[in-house]
Amino acid sequence: MMDSMPQQSSSAPPAPPDPPLAGLKLDANGLIPAIIQDHKTGQVLMMAWMNCDSLARTLETKKTHFFSRSRNKLWLKGESSGHVQHVKSVATDCDQDVLLIKVEQVGAACHEGYESCFFREMDPLVPAGSGEASGWKVVGKLVFDPKKVYAK
Amino acid sequence: MMDSMPQQSSSAPPAPPDPPLAGLKLDANGLIPAIIQDHKTGQVLMMAWMNCDSLARTLETKKTHFFSRSRNKLWLKGESSGHVQHVKSVATDCDQDVLLIKVEQVGAACHEGYESCFFREMDPLVPAGSGEASGWKVVGKLVFDPKKVYAK
Repeated sequence: MMDSMPQQSSSAPPAPPDPPLAGLKLDANGLIPAIIQDHKTGQVLMMAWMNCDSLARTLETKKTHFFSRSRNKLWLKGESSGHVQHVKSVATDCDQDVLLIKVEQVGAACHEGYESCFFREMDPLVPAGSGEASGWKVVGKLVFDPKKVYAK
Repeated sequence: MMDSMPQQSSSAPPAPPDPPLAGLKLDANGLIPAIIQDHKTGQVLMMAWMNCDSLARTLETKKTHFFSRSRNKLWLKGESSGHVQHVKSVATDCDQDVLLIKVEQVGAACHEGYESCFFREMDPLVPAGSGEASGWKVVGKLVFDPKKVYAK
């Protein structure tokens, strides 16, 4: 991103270990955002966080692995659904604190059944701030039924 | 992103104000990552952070504004270079904690002179971890000379 200084809390944690790709800058929690893009269509599919382990696993297996901040554990994308992402290329930005990973997506990226997690778009016809549900409309393509896929 | 729980420090700051688009989830610092994509080519140009003010300014002016964590201030993308981004659409993900903004880019996105900030790609011929400069190669297209543009 354009803004390279790490955020430091008053009780800064110890520096994270060196990431498996030289020069990458992890944040104070040892994480880096990874943007996932379909390598053929250019559609941005999702964004999730990686730590050193998940990045190393991603590079080794050529399947995306992320770090879940809520569950505090590494996860293989598609481990429940089978909707894995085969890595085609890995890029980083000028500040080397964001990753852009192009993938071949099996199934669909979003656990809600859409091709991309970015299935809600701002609706210019509904003024922003005019109510709890206002401002967004669903524009994404529904590809699967989450109840069926995750009930397996 | 797929991982929706906000990170809480031991001294959690007060909740940030409601963002100008209903349902968006800002992090504990009142920020949300914004992925910027070229609306025609699909090229991912950059990622930067927005707070409520920068998102409101972006929606009002239809030009991207971000929040600089290092300078602790709002900035208009292109304020120095003239390389502004005209907003074409604003989407959010399933967890509503990331934005995807499609733009028409004037000039080039990266302050280093490249079309996209993601101008470095992992080089599979150079093993990761084999040295400080290893693992990456420049693949992006250089569009302008930063020394000339920022010397104005």
